[in-house]
Amino acid sequence: MTKSSLFSSLLLIFVLISSSTSSKASICSKNGIPLVRNISELPPSDYGRGGLSHITVAGSVLHGMKEVEIWLQTFSPGSRTPIHRHSCEEVFVVLKGSGTLLIASNSHEKHPGKPQEFRIFSNSTFHIPMNDAHQVWNTNANDDLQVLVVISRPPVKVFMYEDWFMPHTAAKLKYPYYWDEDCFYSPKDEL
Amino acid sequence: MTKSSLFSSLLLIFVLISSSTSSKASICSKNGIPLVRNISELPPSDYGRGGLSHITVAGSVLHGMKEVEIWLQTFSPGSRTPIHRHSCEEVFVVLKGSGTLLIASNSHEKHPGKPQEFRIFSNSTFHIPMNDAHQVWNTNANDDLQVLVVISRPPVKVFMYEDWFMPHTAAKLKYPYYWDEDCFYSPKDEL
Repeated sequence: MTKSSLFSSLLLIFVLISSSTSSKASICSKNGIPLVRNISELPPSDYGRGGLSHITVAGSVLHGMKEVEIWLQTFSPGSRTPIHRHSCEEVFVVLKGSGTLLIASNSHEKHPGKPQEFRIFSNSTFHIPMNDAHQVWNTNANDDLQVLVVISRPPVKVFMYEDWFMPHTAAKLKYPYYWDEDCFYSPKDEL
Repeated sequence: MTKSSLFSSLLLIFVLISSSTSSKASICSKNGIPLVRNISELPPSDYGRGGLSHITVAGSVLHGMKEVEIWLQTFSPGSRTPIHRHSCEEVFVVLKGSGTLLIASNSHEKHPGKPQEFRIFSNSTFHIPMNDAHQVWNTNANDDLQVLVVISRPPVKVFMYEDWFMPHTAAKLKYPYYWDEDCFYSPKDEL
């Protein structure tokens, strides 16, 4: 490798690193976020969870919300959330599709126990009582299930269960949650 | 009037009073509300505000929510909210139509002052910083503006302004707000 091609390669690496750093900073910075945002232009991701498309519409980590947070989520046929609970209020508005809500509304034993099942459908709404273990499942084989989700007390702290009979004490805390991870540990704006 | 027709009239009045009481009780009671609700079946009202159609999708007074509340509101062309402020977070998701958000983001003087104007449109989102005076206006002459509104700290306590230069101290508190009035003073379930 000649000196000049080595220099070019190093320059290229430097440019790539700088641009990826600045792009990360701009995604995670709360500065310069427009007041009115086009949801179609916000980047969806599956965060490694097959069949999920998640957009944080108004978020704590991303947009500085302190009391409420809103997500737009699409579940492809057959996909579902983990069985989980959280110490916050959560309301769903179903925008498209249909599916099943599983909820252990008597989660006051040592484990969630056998859940009740409810059919959810386009233009329906439901809320999850605080700390009730639950799971949202697109049980419709043909259509996506799209929901708008509202939570209080962001960012969300999620305890996940492998099954409905796992003891509450064994549920695994996932915090920061998938969509909060990228920006959670980024330096604060004022530093 | 004969004795029997007097009796019939009294019976009719009794039946009418009972049915109106029980119907009011069922609208305002948190007992027996299904977990999954069909939003299309929830009754909209204009609450005396011309051009508005409001549905409380998940509410504090109606459904026992403690930390978040969700409204579905439709504004006919030309209709608008009052100029107002509140000490809670508020997020809008525009479902249909377009319009204008007016917001006095420097409400730290004695009055809100001249607001900034932002175009809002289908599939856009925006949030109102706490205590900033604002107004949402369907400035589109042809189409309805439909928004999903999320607030924290329900039920909402609204301070209303007649114009942008009214002193903050003269803004009028409307509490309970229009859609909370009907059930706000109804007896608690446990009494």
